[in-house]
Parts: sequence; structure tokens; C-alpha cells
Amino acid sequence: MSRLPTVVIGVDFGTLSGRALVVSTEDGTELGTAVHEYRHGVVERRLPDSDVVLKPQWALQIPQDWRDVLANAIPAALAAAGVTAEQVVGIGTDFTACTILPTTAAGVPLCELDELRDRPHAYPKLWKHHAAQPHADRINALAAERGETWLARYGGKISSEWQFAKGLQLLEEDPEVYRLAERWIEAADWIIWELCGEETRNLCTAGYKGIHQDGSYPSREFLEALNPDFGGFVAKLDHPLSAMGERAGGLSARAAALTGLPEGIAVAIGNVDAHVTSVAAGAIEPGQMLAVMGTSTCHIINGPALAEVPGMCGVVEDGVIPGLWGFEAGQSGVGDIFAWFVESGLPEEYQAEAQERGLSAHELLSEKAAKQTVGQHGLIALDWHGGNRSVLVDHDLSGVLVGATLATRPEDVYRALLEATAFGTRTIIDAFEGGGVRVDELIVAGGLLRSSFLMQLYADVIQRPLSIIGSAQGPALGSAIHAAVAAGAYPDLRAASAAMSRVHRNVYEPDPNNAAAYDQLYAIYTELHDHFGRGGTDALHRLHTLRSGGALHS
Amino acid sequence: MSRLPTVVIGVDFGTLSGRALVVSTEDGTELGTAVHEYRHGVVERRLPDSDVVLKPQWALQIPQDWRDVLANAIPAALAAAGVTAEQVVGIGTDFTACTILPTTAAGVPLCELDELRDRPHAYPKLWKHHAAQPHADRINALAAERGETWLARYGGKISSEWQFAKGLQLLEEDPEVYRLAERWIEAADWIIWELCGEETRNLCTAGYKGIHQDGSYPSREFLEALNPDFGGFVAKLDHPLSAMGERAGGLSARAAALTGLPEGIAVAIGNVDAHVTSVAAGAIEPGQMLAVMGTSTCHIINGPALAEVPGMCGVVEDGVIPGLWGFEAGQSGVGDIFAWFVESGLPEEYQAEAQERGLSAHELLSEKAAKQTVGQHGLIALDWHGGNRSVLVDHDLSGVLVGATLATRPEDVYRALLEATAFGTRTIIDAFEGGGVRVDELIVAGGLLRSSFLMQLYADVIQRPLSIIGSAQGPALGSAIHAAVAAGAYPDLRAASAAMSRVHRNVYEPDPNNAAAYDQLYAIYTELHDHFGRGGTDALHRLHTLRSGGALHS
Repeated sequence: MSRLPTVVIGVDFGTLSGRALVVSTEDGTELGTAVHEYRHGVVERRLPDSDVVLKPQWALQIPQDWRDVLANAIPAALAAAGVTAEQVVGIGTDFTACTILPTTAAGVPLCELDELRDRPHAYPKLWKHHAAQPHADRINALAAERGETWLARYGGKISSEWQFAKGLQLLEEDPEVYRLAERWIEAADWIIWELCGEETRNLCTAGYKGIHQDGSYPSREFLEALNPDFGGFVAKLDHPLSAMGERAGGLSARAAALTGLPEGIAVAIGNVDAHVTSVAAGAIEPGQMLAVMGTSTCHIINGPALAEVPGMCGVVEDGVIPGLWGFEAGQSGVGDIFAWFVESGLPEEYQAEAQERGLSAHELLSEKAAKQTVGQHGLIALDWHGGNRSVLVDHDLSGVLVGATLATRPEDVYRALLEATAFGTRTIIDAFEGGGVRVDELIVAGGLLRSSFLMQLYADVIQRPLSIIGSAQGPALGSAIHAAVAAGAYPDLRAASAAMSRVHRNVYEPDPNNAAAYDQLYAIYTELHDHFGRGGTDALHRLHTLRSGGALHS
Repeated sequence: MSRLPTVVIGVDFGTLSGRALVVSTEDGTELGTAVHEYRHGVVERRLPDSDVVLKPQWALQIPQDWRDVLANAIPAALAAAGVTAEQVVGIGTDFTACTILPTTAAGVPLCELDELRDRPHAYPKLWKHHAAQPHADRINALAAERGETWLARYGGKISSEWQFAKGLQLLEEDPEVYRLAERWIEAADWIIWELCGEETRNLCTAGYKGIHQDGSYPSREFLEALNPDFGGFVAKLDHPLSAMGERAGGLSARAAALTGLPEGIAVAIGNVDAHVTSVAAGAIEPGQMLAVMGTSTCHIINGPALAEVPGMCGVVEDGVIPGLWGFEAGQSGVGDIFAWFVESGLPEEYQAEAQERGLSAHELLSEKAAKQTVGQHGLIALDWHGGNRSVLVDHDLSGVLVGATLATRPEDVYRALLEATAFGTRTIIDAFEGGGVRVDELIVAGGLLRSSFLMQLYADVIQRPLSIIGSAQGPALGSAIHAAVAAGAYPDLRAASAAMSRVHRNVYEPDPNNAAAYDQLYAIYTELHDHFGRGGTDALHRLHTLRSGGALHS
């Protein structure tokens, strides 16, 4: 047995499914993978097997779906890899975040208690549960008013998706469930509890989603000012925080039985899907910005020192890699904007041509758009169809298209939308550099890296080389790398990443001519961005109000 | 023969074809009609039977195509009407304008001289020849600098489409053809010359397209300041002007032979397609605004006194009806914006549904859009895909769409585009009322009146009742009414219009609830209109420069 090479397993818990990936501990080679789809997916309309209807903007999940990933995907991945369970020396996981649930002191999800089965607030709230916006607004207003120092660590605004906003909603809408929730825990940490049988808390979610800064959570005074009954909230969170790559514990007997893995193997501390990808993509040194580009984009970059960058999502000391400050930013809509355009705005003849030539609509549009020179379409779009995360932190914004003529063709609009998201990335990069965080290189992970047209366009717009992750399973590979460190195969994440990461460096270099031409378009983008996003007009907010069925003040 | 009822013929010369309409002199009943398409249509690429290539933005026509309408459409319309040529007592015509050509002193188009056949400038320039913009810019700048009083009669800007801009282009680009052009004459007047054998000039084109105000054209000093060789330009235009509805002369023997009509019957003075429609639609009294709505919209309204309205196209004393001041305004793009959207932005499933249900794409989109409440789509568009004629007079503007989300559907955008054109009309109405010209009612002619959804939307947006012309051939009917006056069947246009016009009054009344809701959207439209159109940003001009292949100053 000792002759067989060792492997580690990374498990990536996404929005609709979980994936297990079996990886060679020695060099990161991906040996096998398997996906298990959540039976209940995202619960948005009514509770399972129940007549209880959810309100708008709610999004819940079911803990058993996550356990089922452990029970199904792990054995399947091992089988696909052709390795035995005995070769596995460690397991790491990553989760969507902030996905958070109330549990008993023993870690039992409240929704699994018979008497709470019909209470929506007893269930895990998925990251995209957006019903706590009023609570986030109050938190932000009060923090600004009181001059809370932690506010600047989140670019000036905390999100309705995060632990405190969702917790305040829980308190005010279902005080009994709030009281019964002895623990209020990220799914990223809860899954580790399931694996080890012991509660742990990771520094990453505590920092990025839990407002844990400089060693503490927001003060009791602050919380009581929000609501007198909220003063003790931190007791539901508090626990020593573990560093990234640390061993959370050994796999419990129960989890070993569930997964078929050997009892006692190393379980790495919990992690977040985007952040964990950094080590897989070799994006851990200052200047190396990771962009996980899919329906939306998440940006992760490390820096040697604290910087408070307006409009970023957050900065956490040791949040990604011990010894560095980890910065996060994001774009709400990227790939989903392109998908929306193709679904809602592509004429029959284009569909027919794509079908006839065996291309996807995206490939066809990219091919046509690639024939243009920069600026030829005369369009500028704002990429806010799903709101704006960084740097405006305003979910009520919406998309803008400027410059259409009777000669404007679908490929023109498509290209303008691609460019808009690149300008959005450049806006974030400019904010970081303006705030003292160097950005030398973009390292791209996620599904959109398959479009070489898009990648070259990004290189030209941001005027930096683009590197590309060499794995289709960045988060799972990152989790596996954390598992390798937790198992002691490497002294730290940096060493593990050097051995196991997969990245093609500088695949796309900026074309100087295009870059200069894009500067002209970017200047217009920035002007529109600031006009529509920074108070030049409140037109988009008024339209949001009308769209939501509200009336404007006359 | 004297027992047979008399008829008049109206001939409408459009952009791609000419139409003859036979009408009862007594009550305007339309008895028969026929269309003849121009063999050469719009000449935009190269001269016919020639290798001479035209520059961008050129648009020419061929005089023989117009003669062919007389020769073909008139006999065909008579045949369709089942009346004999002997019943015809008069003929009236209307033309696109400013469509203008250089001729000899005898009225021979220079392009018909063998030695000039290969010279683009020898041909008629169609209204949409847009290559004289630099010349128009110079005329406007100089007029503003010199404080020329006529400038305000054109809302502050004359158009590149008009007589002086096209004439200056002719002089500077082909001085020899300029010198040989003893006459520079609107096609509207040239066709009368063909019919009567005598030159006449009508007051309408001279005023609206020829800068003829208060009895004179721009001064020699002004013209010499533009170009020393341009000082004598007015000699090519000058001629006594005839009032609208006046008899230009009797049908010549040659024209009688061409058309099969009796020699000597009354020929009415030349006219313009939009203006001539006023009498057909019963839109001649102050407060009654005619809107001819097709690919673009032309607005005509009469007032009792001079008013200089910023951004209107022009005001001419007696320009539409003797005794009143006739005002003109326009929207560059209306129906062509809707058509562009359907052609370039409608997904396959909508095409399929329309086909299956036997609807046009417009009908399907209108049906879906009609189910929404006002503002529900959360969108505002600027209707500038073809530039803006009134009230900004800026052809380099382009379309804007604000408020798109990932939930935005094609019917949302379609409705926003319909609304944008209605807001554009309201902007024009507001400008007129702000300038002292009352607008009580909109009387709609043109193809778009067939959409009852669009008509109701306009009524709600402009908060005035909409009346609808009762003829599908408004311009030709208007020309026939002018013919009836020229033939002496009525003492004046007002009497002829009362007897022969066709209009359904107040078909659409504003819904007060919708009107109030549209006020909120219109406020946003106006804000964007002014921001993008009145100097808040020059983004659209910069995009126009880039689209045209130019570089911006860095």
C-alpha cells in the first residue's frame, strides 16, 4: 500500500451541485471527478413537501443535499480516478458564501428539527438570498453614522448577502428561530463539522462575510443600536478562527462511513469557492489578480499591506494566504449578460447560421464581432444588467446601451457587452491601483476562459497580460491543494501551489494599437459609469422603482 | 360628357415610387389609384450605366423615373377608377423635398446632357443626400455669427438637406456644373415645368427648403462671405413665388400626350408630400397638428402669427395655407426604428410564434407589450437611431437604451422604443407650446396609424386626443384637393378641404391614469434627452466619430 501514490480530494459545493475531484498529491494531476446535483437545487418558491410559500428574493438550500454530495460524488470520483480509498490522505472543501444556517449547539440544522420544518428561517440561506437588503441598508447607515472602522474594510458597504444582514433578518422576522439558533454558521464551516464531528470556523468567511476584523466582530453597542435584541448575536458566531490550509481535524467515523474514505485522514479547514481557486491558478503573490469568470466574476488578489479600497468587497488579513492581505472584488453580471443577449436578442437568421455551421451562438457572434476594428460599432454599454457589485455596490442599477443606429447589428451589441464587462474589470483594477494595491497580471479561471476572443479583448482593455488556469475544476483543485497542506504533504500553501497548481502564463498579451483605441472607449465608459452610478442622475433608481411596481414622488 | 362627374388627380412622388390617385371633385371619394416604381430607385452606389462611384452619404435620383410615373401611373389610375380622361379637370402633385436638380434655362436636367452624364453633381440630389453637412455647418456658423434674422425661422439651424447647403456643395465640388446650372430647382417645381412647359416656383419649398423669408433669399453679402463665387447663387433660384393651391398653368400638349390627359386642364403649383397632406387630413386650423408617421415623422401645424420656435424645422408665412403661418418639425426615425428592432433583435421563438399565429412581428410584440402597465419594463430609450431632427437638429446623435436587466424581454424593449418616439413627439409639442404655438390635437396620417396600440400610447403620452386620417393615400389626396382648387372647383383650400378631406376625429382619447404614469417616464426621458443632446456629455458625438472611422483627440 505504501507503494501507491497518495491522492487528495477536493469537494466544491456550488449553487446547483457539488463536485468531487481526485488529485495527485505529488503534482496536482487530476485523476478523476464526479458531480452530484442537489435534489432540491435552489429553494425559491416553497419549502420542500410543504405549502409554505417563500417571499420574493428568498433563496434557501437543504443540508441533506450537501451530505448527498459527500456520499455520492466522492466514491464516484474515486472510481473514475481508478484509485482506492486507501490512497486518500486528505480532503478539502469549498462552498458558496455567504451561505449560512442556524443550528443547535451540536450542529444540527434547525430545519431538520420536526417542529421547525415549516419555518423558512430555519433553513440555510443561500448566498443569493436577497431579502435582507433593508437590514443591510440599516447596518451600513448606522456604521457610517458611528464611524465604525470596519466599514472601510468592505469598500464602504456590507452586502445584504452576508452574515449580519441575514442574521438581523432572522431575528426580526422569526425571533423564536433566532433564539433557538445556538450557532449561526457558514455552510463552508458546517460541512467541516459534518466531516470531523467538531465545530471549526475559517478565517476566510469570518473575514469576508462575517465582518471579523482586527480580531473581533462588530461591538455589542453597535448591534444593540441596530436592535436591542441583537446585542448577543456574536455569541452565535464566536469560535477560534483557523488559518487557511490548516487541518480542521481527522475524518470522523460517521463521515468515513458516509464517504467510504479512511477514518482519520486530514480534513482541511473550510473555504470559499473563489478564494480557494487562487492556489489552483498560481495566483497568490502580490500583483497577481485572479478573476473567476462565469455568470459573474469574482476577483481575488493578495497584497503585502492593508489598503482600504473604495468599492471593493472586502480585505482580510491572511484571508487567502497566510501572511498576506487578501482583497476581493466582483462584477455582478458577466456571462449571464452575454447569455441574456443571446436568448432575448438574437434573430432567426443568426440562430440558423450557427446551427448550420455547428457553432454556438456565442461562437458565431464572436466570429462576426472579431472582424471589426475597435470602436467601429460606435457603442458603449454599461454592464449593470444584474446590478453593480464593485466598485459601486449598488444592486438597483441596470444596463445601459448608448450609440445604437439603424445600422447596428447583433454582433455590434454583443461585442459592446463583452467590452463593457472588460471595462468593468478595468474599473476595479483602477480602483485597486488607486488604493495602492498593485495589479500586474490577470489570471483567469472559470468557464469564460474558453473564449479566446473575449480573453484577447480583456488583455487589450486592461493592458495587462492574461494567464489562464490549466484546470476546468479550479475550486475543487484548490480545495485539494488545501487538503494536501492539511495532510502535511507540503509545509504551506505556497509550496503546495507551486507543485500542484495549473496555469498557462501570459497566454494573451495586449495589442498596443487596440489598447490605445480602447482607451478612448473606456473614457466614455467611465464618464457614463460615473454619471449613472455616482449621482450624476438617479434615473436608474427611478426606473428600478417603477419596475418594482412603486410610484415615484411627483 | 357634361353629365359625368368631374375628377381630379393627385400624384405623389415618393422616395422609391410615384402614385397617382383619382378623386371625386365633389366629395373627395377615392376612385382609383396606381403606383409606378422608379426604375433606378435611389442612386447611392454608382451612376446608372457607368463606372462612376458615389461617395458615402450621396443619394441621387433620375428625372426620367419621374416622367415615367406620369406616363404610367396616371393612365393606370384612371383605368382602375373606371373614369375617362375627359372627366379630369385638374392635376396636382407633391414631391419629397428638398430634392433638387440643376437644369438649363429651358428646364433640361443637366444629367440628361450627354457631356455631363458622368458627373454626379449633374444629377438630382434626393432629400436624403447627406453629403453637404460640412456646407450646412458653415452656413449655420456664419449665419449665427452675422446674426442673420432668417436663422430663427429654422429653429436655429438649417439642414444639410436643403437648397443652399446642396448648392454650396455643388459649387465647391464641381464648379463647372455649378456654372452650367442656369436653374437650381426643386423637383416639386421641375415636375410642374414638365406638366405646363413653364417654370413656376412654389412658396412652400422656397420657404421651408430655400431660406426664402420676408420676401427675399439670403443676401449676396452673406453668400459671398461663404464663398466669393457663391454670391450670385440666388439668380439660379429667383422667380416669382406662387401660393399654395394656385393654378400653375394648363397641361401642355406634350404632357397631355405623355399622360393621356386633356390638354389645358389645370395644373396646381408644386407641393411637398407632408405639407400637402394637411388639407387631406383636415388639419389646417391653428391647434391642429398633423403628424405624418411612417419611417420618420413630419409634423405640420398652422398658427395665426409668427413664432420662432427653437429646434423646429421651419416656419413659412402662407407656407401651407394662405393666411396662416405654417410650422414644420420632424423626427428622423420612428417606424424605421421599430423595423430595425424587429429585423435585428427578435429571437427565433418570437418569429415562430408570429408565423404560427398569422401575426406580423409588430403585432405580436404590441400584443405582448400591451399587457404591461406603464413603467413596468423599467426602460427608457432615446429615439435617435437615425439622429434627431427636432428639436435638437443633430444628425450625429444615436440611440440610447437605459434600464435593461437580465429579465428584460424583447417586448419590453419594443415598447420602450414606441414610447421613446411618443416622448419625442411630446418634446416637439412642448417646444411649440413653449414658443407660443398652440397644439390641441394630433391628426395622424401615414402607415403607423394602423397600430391602435401605438396610437393609444401616443394619446396617453401627449395627453391630447388623436384623430386619424381616413385615407391610405394622404399626400395624393392632398394633391388632388390642391388640383380641385387650381381647377376652380372650390374658392380656396379651406373650402376644398372641408368638402374633400377624410378624417376620423378623436378616435383615441388619453387615459388619465396612464397619462399620469407616463409623466414620470417622460421626466426621465427629458433628463436623458438634455444630458445626451444638449451638452451634458458629448459621448454620442465621440461615438459617431469612432463609428465613422475617425480618431478622437487624446
